[in-house]
Amino acid sequence: MAKLRKARVLVGCCYFWAVELGSQLVQDAVNAFARFPGIGRKSALKLVLHLLRREPSEALGLGDALKRLVEEIRYCERCFHFSDHALCSVCSNPRRQHETVCVVADPRDLMAIEQTGRYTGVYHVLGGLIAPLEGVQPEQLRIEELMARVEAGAVKEVVLALNSTHEGETTAFYLSRRLSKAAVVLSTLARGVAVGAELEYADELTLGRSIADRVPFKE
Amino acid sequence: MAKLRKARVLVGCCYFWAVELGSQLVQDAVNAFARFPGIGRKSALKLVLHLLRREPSEALGLGDALKRLVEEIRYCERCFHFSDHALCSVCSNPRRQHETVCVVADPRDLMAIEQTGRYTGVYHVLGGLIAPLEGVQPEQLRIEELMARVEAGAVKEVVLALNSTHEGETTAFYLSRRLSKAAVVLSTLARGVAVGAELEYADELTLGRSIADRVPFKE
Repeated sequence: MAKLRKARVLVGCCYFWAVELGSQLVQDAVNAFARFPGIGRKSALKLVLHLLRREPSEALGLGDALKRLVEEIRYCERCFHFSDHALCSVCSNPRRQHETVCVVADPRDLMAIEQTGRYTGVYHVLGGLIAPLEGVQPEQLRIEELMARVEAGAVKEVVLALNSTHEGETTAFYLSRRLSKAAVVLSTLARGVAVGAELEYADELTLGRSIADRVPFKE
Repeated sequence: MAKLRKARVLVGCCYFWAVELGSQLVQDAVNAFARFPGIGRKSALKLVLHLLRREPSEALGLGDALKRLVEEIRYCERCFHFSDHALCSVCSNPRRQHETVCVVADPRDLMAIEQTGRYTGVYHVLGGLIAPLEGVQPEQLRIEELMARVEAGAVKEVVLALNSTHEGETTAFYLSRRLSKAAVVLSTLARGVAVGAELEYADELTLGRSIADRVPFKE
Protein backbone atom coordinates (compact mmCIF):
# COMPACT_ATOMS: atom_id res chain seq x y z
CA MET A 1 0.00 0.00 0.00
CA ALA A 2 2.74 2.42 1.03
CA LYS A 3 4.78 1.35 -2.00
CA LEU A 4 1.82 1.90 -4.27
CA ARG A 5 1.37 5.40 -2.84
CA LYS A 6 5.04 6.20 -3.34
CA ALA A 7 4.82 5.04 -6.95
CA ARG A 8 1.73 7.21 -7.46
CA VAL A 9 3.52 10.24 -6.03
CA LEU A 10 6.51 9.63 -8.30
CA VAL A 11 4.36 9.28 -11.38
CA GLY A 12 2.35 12.27 -10.20
CA CYS A 13 5.45 14.47 -10.01
CA CYS A 14 6.48 13.72 -13.58
CA TYR A 15 2.93 14.26 -14.76
CA PHE A 16 2.87 17.54 -12.83
CA TRP A 17 5.69 18.94 -14.90
CA ALA A 18 5.04 17.18 -18.15
CA VAL A 19 1.42 18.16 -18.61
CA GLU A 20 0.00 20.64 -16.19
CA LEU A 21 2.13 23.76 -16.42
CA GLY A 22 -0.13 24.74 -19.31
CA SER A 23 1.97 27.53 -20.78
CA GLN A 24 5.30 27.35 -22.57
CA LEU A 25 6.14 30.87 -21.36
CA VAL A 26 5.71 29.83 -17.74
CA GLN A 27 7.71 26.67 -18.44
CA ASP A 28 10.58 28.72 -19.95
CA ALA A 29 10.69 31.12 -17.00
CA VAL A 30 10.60 28.23 -14.51
CA ASN A 31 13.44 26.50 -16.38
CA ALA A 32 15.52 29.70 -16.29
CA PHE A 33 15.05 30.14 -12.53
CA ALA A 34 15.60 26.44 -11.82
CA ARG A 35 19.17 26.73 -13.18
CA PHE A 36 20.23 28.62 -10.07
CA PRO A 37 21.87 26.56 -7.33
CA GLY A 38 19.46 25.95 -4.48
CA ILE A 39 16.33 26.72 -6.53
CA GLY A 40 14.31 23.66 -7.45
CA ARG A 41 11.43 23.54 -9.90
CA LYS A 42 8.81 24.11 -7.22
CA SER A 43 10.58 27.19 -5.85
CA ALA A 44 11.11 28.43 -9.40
CA LEU A 45 7.38 28.17 -10.07
CA LYS A 46 6.72 30.09 -6.85
CA LEU A 47 9.00 32.91 -8.06
CA VAL A 48 7.31 32.97 -11.47
CA LEU A 49 3.82 33.10 -9.92
CA HIS A 50 4.99 35.93 -7.67
CA LEU A 51 6.14 37.91 -10.71
CA LEU A 52 2.84 37.28 -12.50
CA ARG A 53 0.93 38.68 -9.52
CA ARG A 54 3.01 41.88 -9.43
CA GLU A 55 3.22 44.77 -11.87
CA PRO A 56 4.95 43.78 -15.16
CA SER A 57 7.52 46.51 -14.42
CA GLU A 58 8.97 44.37 -11.64
CA ALA A 59 9.81 41.46 -13.95
CA LEU A 60 11.05 43.86 -16.64
CA GLY A 61 13.17 45.65 -14.01
CA LEU A 62 14.81 42.39 -12.98
CA GLY A 63 15.44 41.45 -16.63
CA ASP A 64 16.95 44.86 -17.30
CA ALA A 65 19.15 44.78 -14.16
CA LEU A 66 20.51 41.36 -15.22
CA LYS A 67 21.15 42.50 -18.79
CA ARG A 68 23.07 45.59 -17.61
CA LEU A 69 24.86 43.47 -14.99
CA VAL A 70 26.38 40.99 -17.43
CA GLU A 71 26.97 43.51 -20.19
CA GLU A 72 28.46 46.36 -18.17
CA ILE A 73 29.99 44.74 -15.07
CA ARG A 74 33.50 45.99 -14.37
CA TYR A 75 36.11 44.55 -12.07
CA CYS A 76 38.88 46.31 -10.17
CA GLU A 77 41.96 46.17 -12.40
CA ARG A 78 44.15 45.17 -9.49
CA CYS A 79 42.14 42.80 -7.23
CA PHE A 80 39.16 41.82 -9.47
CA HIS A 81 36.52 42.75 -6.92
CA PHE A 82 33.44 44.39 -8.47
CA SER A 83 34.04 48.04 -9.08
CA ASP A 84 32.38 50.88 -10.95
CA HIS A 85 35.81 52.53 -11.24
CA ALA A 86 39.20 51.32 -12.46
CA LEU A 87 40.24 50.55 -8.88
CA CYS A 88 37.84 49.34 -6.16
CA SER A 89 37.30 51.19 -2.88
CA VAL A 90 39.84 48.97 -1.08
CA CYS A 91 42.62 49.20 -3.70
CA SER A 92 42.19 52.97 -4.02
CA ASN A 93 42.32 53.53 -0.25
CA PRO A 94 45.79 54.88 0.71
CA ARG A 95 45.24 53.86 4.36
CA ARG A 96 45.15 50.15 3.52
CA GLN A 97 48.40 48.14 3.75
CA HIS A 98 49.09 47.42 0.09
CA GLU A 99 51.97 45.03 0.81
CA THR A 100 49.58 42.48 2.37
CA VAL A 101 47.36 40.66 -0.13
CA CYS A 102 44.54 38.39 1.02
CA VAL A 103 43.59 35.79 -1.61
CA VAL A 104 39.85 34.92 -1.63
CA ALA A 105 37.73 32.73 -3.92
CA ASP A 106 34.93 35.18 -4.60
CA PRO A 107 33.59 38.61 -3.60
CA ARG A 108 31.36 37.12 -0.91
CA ASP A 109 34.42 35.98 1.01
CA LEU A 110 35.97 39.43 0.58
CA MET A 111 32.81 41.01 1.98
CA ALA A 112 32.74 38.57 4.90
CA ILE A 113 36.32 39.53 5.83
CA GLU A 114 35.64 43.25 5.36
CA GLN A 115 32.63 42.86 7.63
CA THR A 116 34.88 41.77 10.51
CA GLY A 117 36.71 45.11 10.38
CA ARG A 118 39.88 43.25 11.44
CA TYR A 119 41.82 43.25 8.16
CA THR A 120 43.70 46.27 6.90
CA GLY A 121 45.45 44.86 3.82
CA VAL A 122 44.16 44.51 0.27
CA TYR A 123 42.65 41.56 -1.63
CA HIS A 124 42.96 39.36 -4.69
CA VAL A 125 39.76 37.68 -5.92
CA LEU A 126 40.50 34.38 -7.70
CA GLY A 127 37.01 33.98 -9.14
CA GLY A 128 36.56 30.43 -7.82
CA LEU A 129 38.51 27.43 -6.58
CA ILE A 130 40.34 24.70 -8.47
CA ALA A 131 37.79 21.90 -8.96
CA PRO A 132 38.80 19.46 -11.72
CA LEU A 133 35.60 17.43 -11.26
CA GLU A 134 33.53 20.52 -12.07
CA GLY A 135 35.89 21.47 -14.88
CA VAL A 136 37.55 24.41 -13.08
CA GLN A 137 41.27 24.38 -13.92
CA PRO A 138 43.90 26.80 -12.51
CA GLU A 139 44.00 28.63 -15.87
CA GLN A 140 40.38 29.72 -15.40
CA LEU A 141 41.17 31.48 -12.12
CA ARG A 142 43.03 34.78 -11.75
CA ILE A 143 46.21 33.05 -10.60
CA GLU A 144 48.54 34.48 -13.26
CA GLU A 145 47.33 37.95 -12.28
CA LEU A 146 48.22 37.16 -8.64
CA MET A 147 51.68 35.94 -9.71
CA ALA A 148 52.16 39.18 -11.68
CA ARG A 149 51.23 41.25 -8.62
CA VAL A 150 53.67 39.30 -6.46
CA GLU A 151 56.46 39.41 -9.05
CA ALA A 152 56.03 43.18 -9.41
CA GLY A 153 57.67 43.24 -5.97
CA ALA A 154 55.46 45.40 -3.75
CA VAL A 155 53.83 42.42 -1.98
CA LYS A 156 55.34 41.20 1.31
CA GLU A 157 52.67 38.83 2.59
CA VAL A 158 50.06 36.65 0.87
CA VAL A 159 47.20 35.46 3.12
CA LEU A 160 45.35 32.44 1.76
CA ALA A 161 41.74 32.89 2.97
CA LEU A 162 40.13 29.95 1.18
CA ASN A 163 37.32 27.62 2.22
CA SER A 164 38.32 24.73 4.42
CA THR A 165 36.97 22.29 1.81
CA HIS A 166 38.64 19.87 -0.58
CA GLU A 167 38.64 22.50 -3.36
CA GLY A 168 39.92 25.18 -0.99
CA GLU A 169 42.77 22.99 0.27
CA THR A 170 43.71 21.99 -3.30
CA THR A 171 43.81 25.60 -4.39
CA ALA A 172 45.83 26.62 -1.32
CA PHE A 173 48.32 23.82 -2.03
CA TYR A 174 48.61 24.84 -5.69
CA LEU A 175 49.15 28.50 -4.77
CA SER A 176 51.73 27.62 -2.10
CA ARG A 177 53.73 25.69 -4.74
CA ARG A 178 53.47 28.51 -7.24
CA LEU A 179 54.48 31.10 -4.65
CA SER A 180 57.26 29.03 -3.03
CA LYS A 181 60.03 30.79 -4.97
CA ALA A 182 58.64 34.29 -4.47
CA ALA A 183 60.03 36.42 -1.64
CA VAL A 184 56.72 36.64 0.24
CA VAL A 185 55.50 35.40 3.60
CA LEU A 186 52.65 32.94 3.01
CA SER A 187 49.98 32.72 5.72
CA THR A 188 46.52 31.30 6.10
CA LEU A 189 43.45 31.73 8.29
CA ALA A 190 43.74 30.35 11.82
CA ARG A 191 41.53 27.25 12.15
CA GLY A 192 40.03 26.34 15.47
CA VAL A 193 37.04 26.36 17.74
CA ALA A 194 34.66 29.20 16.90
CA VAL A 195 34.57 32.21 19.22
CA GLY A 196 31.61 31.76 21.60
CA ALA A 197 31.30 28.05 20.78
CA GLU A 198 30.93 25.26 23.34
CA LEU A 199 33.71 22.66 23.12
CA GLU A 200 31.23 19.85 23.58
CA TYR A 201 29.63 20.65 20.23
CA ALA A 202 32.78 21.40 18.22
CA ASP A 203 33.47 18.81 15.52
CA GLU A 204 36.39 16.41 16.13
CA LEU A 205 38.58 17.64 13.28
CA THR A 206 38.33 21.28 14.31
CA LEU A 207 38.85 20.59 18.02
CA GLY A 208 41.79 18.29 17.22
CA ARG A 209 43.45 20.90 15.06
CA SER A 210 42.68 23.56 17.63
CA ILE A 211 44.47 21.70 20.44
CA ALA A 212 47.41 20.70 18.24
CA ASP A 213 47.89 24.31 17.03
CA ARG A 214 47.35 25.81 20.50
CA VAL A 215 48.58 29.38 21.01
CA PRO A 216 49.99 31.33 24.00
CA PHE A 217 47.29 32.47 26.43
CA LYS A 218 46.59 36.19 26.27
CA GLU A 219 44.50 38.00 28.87
CA MET B 1 30.93 40.69 25.79
CA ALA B 2 28.20 38.80 23.93
CA LYS B 3 26.20 42.02 23.63
CA LEU B 4 29.21 43.84 22.28
CA ARG B 5 29.68 41.12 19.70
CA LYS B 6 26.04 41.27 18.67
CA ALA B 7 26.32 45.03 18.25
CA ARG B 8 29.47 44.56 16.13
CA VAL B 9 27.67 42.03 13.95
CA LEU B 10 24.73 44.38 13.52
CA VAL B 11 26.92 47.34 12.60
CA GLY B 12 28.95 44.99 10.40
CA CYS B 13 25.86 43.93 8.46
CA CYS B 14 24.87 47.50 7.66
CA TYR B 15 28.43 48.35 6.70
CA PHE B 16 28.52 45.22 4.58
CA TRP B 17 25.70 46.51 2.40
CA ALA B 18 26.38 50.19 2.57
CA VAL B 19 30.01 50.13 1.55
CA GLU B 20 31.38 46.88 0.31
CA LEU B 21 29.24 45.79 -2.60
CA GLY B 22 31.49 47.92 -4.76
CA SER B 23 29.36 48.09 -7.88
CA GLN B 24 26.04 49.79 -8.50
CA LEU B 25 25.19 47.18 -11.15
CA VAL B 26 25.62 44.36 -8.65
CA GLN B 27 23.62 46.36 -6.11
CA ASP B 28 20.75 46.85 -8.60
CA ALA B 29 20.64 43.15 -9.48
CA VAL B 30 20.73 42.16 -5.79
CA ASN B 31 17.88 44.59 -5.04
CA ALA B 32 15.79 43.13 -7.88
CA PHE B 33 16.24 39.55 -6.64
CA ALA B 34 15.70 40.51 -2.99
CA ARG B 35 12.12 41.61 -3.84
CA PHE B 36 11.07 37.98 -4.18
CA PRO B 37 9.42 36.41 -1.15
CA GLY B 38 11.86 34.14 0.66
CA ILE B 39 14.98 35.63 -0.94
CA GLY B 40 17.01 37.79 1.41
CA ARG B 41 19.89 40.05 0.43
CA LYS B 42 22.51 37.37 1.08
CA SER B 43 20.73 34.80 -1.08
CA ALA B 44 20.20 37.46 -3.75
CA LEU B 45 23.93 38.16 -3.81
CA LYS B 46 24.58 34.42 -4.14
CA LEU B 47 22.32 34.30 -7.20
CA VAL B 48 24.00 37.33 -8.75
CA LEU B 49 27.48 35.88 -8.19
CA HIS B 50 26.30 32.62 -9.76
CA LEU B 51 25.15 34.50 -12.88
CA LEU B 52 28.46 36.38 -13.09
CA ARG B 53 30.36 33.09 -13.07
CA ARG B 54 28.28 31.63 -15.90
CA GLU B 55 28.06 32.60 -19.56
CA PRO B 56 26.35 35.98 -20.09
CA SER B 57 23.77 34.15 -22.23
CA GLU B 58 22.32 32.57 -19.09
CA ALA B 59 21.47 35.90 -17.46
CA LEU B 60 20.24 37.28 -20.78
CA GLY B 61 18.12 34.15 -21.26
CA LEU B 62 16.50 34.63 -17.86
CA GLY B 63 15.87 38.32 -18.57
CA ASP B 64 14.35 37.45 -21.95
CA ALA B 65 12.16 34.66 -20.51
CA LEU B 66 10.80 37.08 -17.89
CA LYS B 67 10.13 39.80 -20.46
CA ARG B 68 8.22 37.41 -22.71
CA LEU B 69 6.44 35.95 -19.69
CA VAL B 70 4.90 39.21 -18.50
CA GLU B 71 4.30 40.61 -21.97
CA GLU B 72 2.84 37.54 -23.65
CA ILE B 73 1.32 35.42 -20.87
CA ARG B 74 -2.19 34.22 -21.71
CA TYR B 75 -4.79 32.71 -19.46
CA CYS B 76 -7.53 30.20 -20.24
CA GLU B 77 -10.65 32.22 -21.13
CA ARG B 78 -12.84 29.99 -18.99
CA CYS B 79 -10.85 29.01 -15.87
CA PHE B 80 -7.90 31.50 -15.92
CA HIS B 81 -5.21 28.83 -15.64
CA PHE B 82 -2.11 29.57 -17.75
CA SER B 83 -2.67 28.55 -21.31
CA ASP B 84 -1.01 29.02 -24.66
CA HIS B 85 -4.41 28.51 -26.30
CA ALA B 86 -7.83 30.10 -25.76
CA LEU B 87 -8.84 27.17 -23.53
CA CYS B 88 -6.45 25.27 -21.25
CA SER B 89 -5.87 21.52 -21.51
CA VAL B 90 -8.40 20.83 -18.74
CA CYS B 91 -11.21 23.05 -20.10
CA SER B 92 -10.74 21.72 -23.63
CA ASN B 93 -10.82 18.07 -22.50
CA PRO B 94 -14.27 16.58 -23.33
CA ARG B 95 -13.68 13.74 -20.85
CA ARG B 96 -13.67 16.10 -17.83
CA GLN B 97 -16.94 16.71 -15.98
CA HIS B 98 -17.67 20.30 -16.91
CA GLU B 99 -20.59 20.64 -14.49
CA THR B 100 -18.21 20.38 -11.48
CA VAL B 101 -16.02 23.46 -10.91
CA CYS B 102 -13.21 23.45 -8.35
CA VAL B 103 -12.32 26.96 -7.13
CA VAL B 104 -8.62 27.41 -6.31
CA ALA B 105 -6.56 30.44 -5.30
CA ASP B 106 -3.72 30.05 -7.78
CA PRO B 107 -2.31 27.69 -10.45
CA ARG B 108 -0.08 25.94 -7.91
CA ASP B 109 -3.16 24.65 -6.07
CA LEU B 110 -4.65 23.52 -9.38
CA MET B 111 -1.45 21.62 -10.19
CA ALA B 112 -1.40 20.03 -6.72
CA ILE B 113 -4.95 18.74 -7.22
CA GLU B 114 -4.23 17.55 -10.77
CA GLN B 115 -1.22 15.72 -9.39
CA THR B 116 -3.46 13.56 -7.18
CA GLY B 117 -5.23 12.23 -10.27
CA ARG B 118 -8.42 12.01 -8.17
CA TYR B 119 -10.38 14.94 -9.59
CA THR B 120 -12.24 14.74 -12.89
CA GLY B 121 -14.01 18.10 -12.96
CA VAL B 122 -12.77 21.48 -14.17
CA TYR B 123 -11.32 24.50 -12.33
CA HIS B 124 -11.67 28.19 -11.67
CA VAL B 125 -8.52 30.08 -10.66
CA LEU B 126 -9.32 33.10 -8.46
CA GLY B 127 -5.86 34.64 -8.70
CA GLY B 128 -5.43 34.98 -4.92
CA LEU B 129 -7.43 35.12 -1.70
CA ILE B 130 -9.33 37.97 -0.08
CA ALA B 131 -6.83 39.68 2.25
CA PRO B 132 -7.91 43.20 3.25
CA LEU B 133 -4.73 43.71 5.31
CA GLU B 134 -2.63 43.14 2.20
CA GLY B 135 -5.00 45.22 0.10
CA VAL B 136 -6.59 42.31 -1.77
CA GLN B 137 -10.33 43.02 -2.15
CA PRO B 138 -12.90 40.66 -3.74
CA GLU B 139 -13.01 42.90 -6.85
CA GLN B 140 -9.37 42.07 -7.59
CA LEU B 141 -10.10 38.33 -7.77
CA ARG B 142 -11.90 36.55 -10.59
CA ILE B 143 -15.12 36.19 -8.57
CA GLU B 144 -17.45 37.96 -11.03
CA GLU B 145 -16.17 35.59 -13.72
CA LEU B 146 -17.04 32.63 -11.45
CA MET B 147 -20.53 34.05 -10.85
CA ALA B 148 -20.99 34.43 -14.60
CA ARG B 149 -20.00 30.79 -15.16
CA VAL B 150 -22.44 29.64 -12.47
CA GLU B 151 -25.25 31.88 -13.73
CA ALA B 152 -24.77 30.59 -17.28
CA GLY B 153 -26.37 27.45 -15.84
CA ALA B 154 -24.12 24.52 -16.82
CA VAL B 155 -22.50 24.24 -13.36
CA LYS B 156 -24.01 21.78 -10.86
CA GLU B 157 -21.35 21.71 -8.12
CA VAL B 158 -18.78 24.24 -6.90
CA VAL B 159 -15.93 22.76 -4.81
CA LEU B 160 -14.11 25.34 -2.66
CA ALA B 161 -10.51 24.11 -2.51
CA LEU B 162 -8.94 27.02 -0.63
CA ASN B 163 -6.17 27.12 1.95
CA SER B 164 -7.17 26.38 5.52
CA THR B 165 -5.90 29.82 6.59
CA HIS B 166 -7.62 32.99 7.73
CA GLU B 167 -7.62 34.35 4.15
CA GLY B 168 -8.83 31.04 2.76
CA GLU B 169 -11.70 30.82 5.24
CA THR B 170 -12.68 34.45 4.59
CA THR B 171 -12.75 33.86 0.84
CA ALA B 172 -14.73 30.62 1.26
CA PHE B 173 -17.28 32.43 3.45
CA TYR B 174 -17.58 35.30 0.95
CA LEU B 175 -18.08 32.87 -1.96
CA SER B 176 -20.62 30.79 -0.03
CA ARG B 177 -22.69 33.97 0.55
CA ARG B 178 -22.42 35.01 -3.09
CA LEU B 179 -23.37 31.54 -4.30
CA SER B 180 -26.16 30.92 -1.75
CA LYS B 181 -28.92 31.86 -4.22
CA ALA B 182 -27.45 29.93 -7.14
CA ALA B 183 -28.78 26.43 -7.83
CA VAL B 184 -25.45 24.70 -7.20
CA VAL B 185 -24.22 22.22 -4.63
CA LEU B 186 -21.42 23.85 -2.62
CA SER B 187 -18.73 21.55 -1.22
CA THR B 188 -15.26 21.90 0.25
CA LEU B 189 -12.18 19.78 0.83
CA ALA B 190 -12.45 17.18 3.59
CA ARG B 191 -10.30 18.27 6.55
CA GLY B 192 -8.78 15.66 8.81
CA VAL B 193 -5.74 13.68 9.80
CA ALA B 194 -3.34 13.25 6.88
CA VAL B 195 -3.20 9.87 5.16
CA GLY B 196 -0.24 7.98 6.60
CA ALA B 197 0.05 10.29 9.61
CA GLU B 198 0.41 9.18 13.24
CA LEU B 199 -2.39 10.46 15.46
CA GLU B 200 0.07 11.32 18.21
CA TYR B 201 1.65 14.00 16.04
CA ALA B 202 -1.53 15.47 14.50
CA ASP B 203 -2.31 18.99 15.69
CA GLU B 204 -5.24 19.41 18.08
CA LEU B 205 -7.46 21.42 15.75
CA THR B 206 -7.15 18.93 12.90
CA LEU B 207 -7.62 15.89 15.12
CA GLY B 208 -10.61 17.53 16.83
CA ARG B 209 -12.27 18.31 13.51
CA SER B 210 -11.41 14.86 12.25
CA ILE B 211 -13.18 13.10 15.13
CA ALA B 212 -16.18 15.45 15.06
CA ASP B 213 -16.63 14.97 11.30
CA ARG B 214 -16.03 11.21 11.45
CA VAL B 215 -17.21 9.18 8.44
CA PRO B 216 -18.53 5.61 7.97
CA PHE B 217 -15.76 2.99 8.00
CA LYS B 218 -15.05 1.51 4.59
CA GLU B 219 -12.93 -1.60 4.10
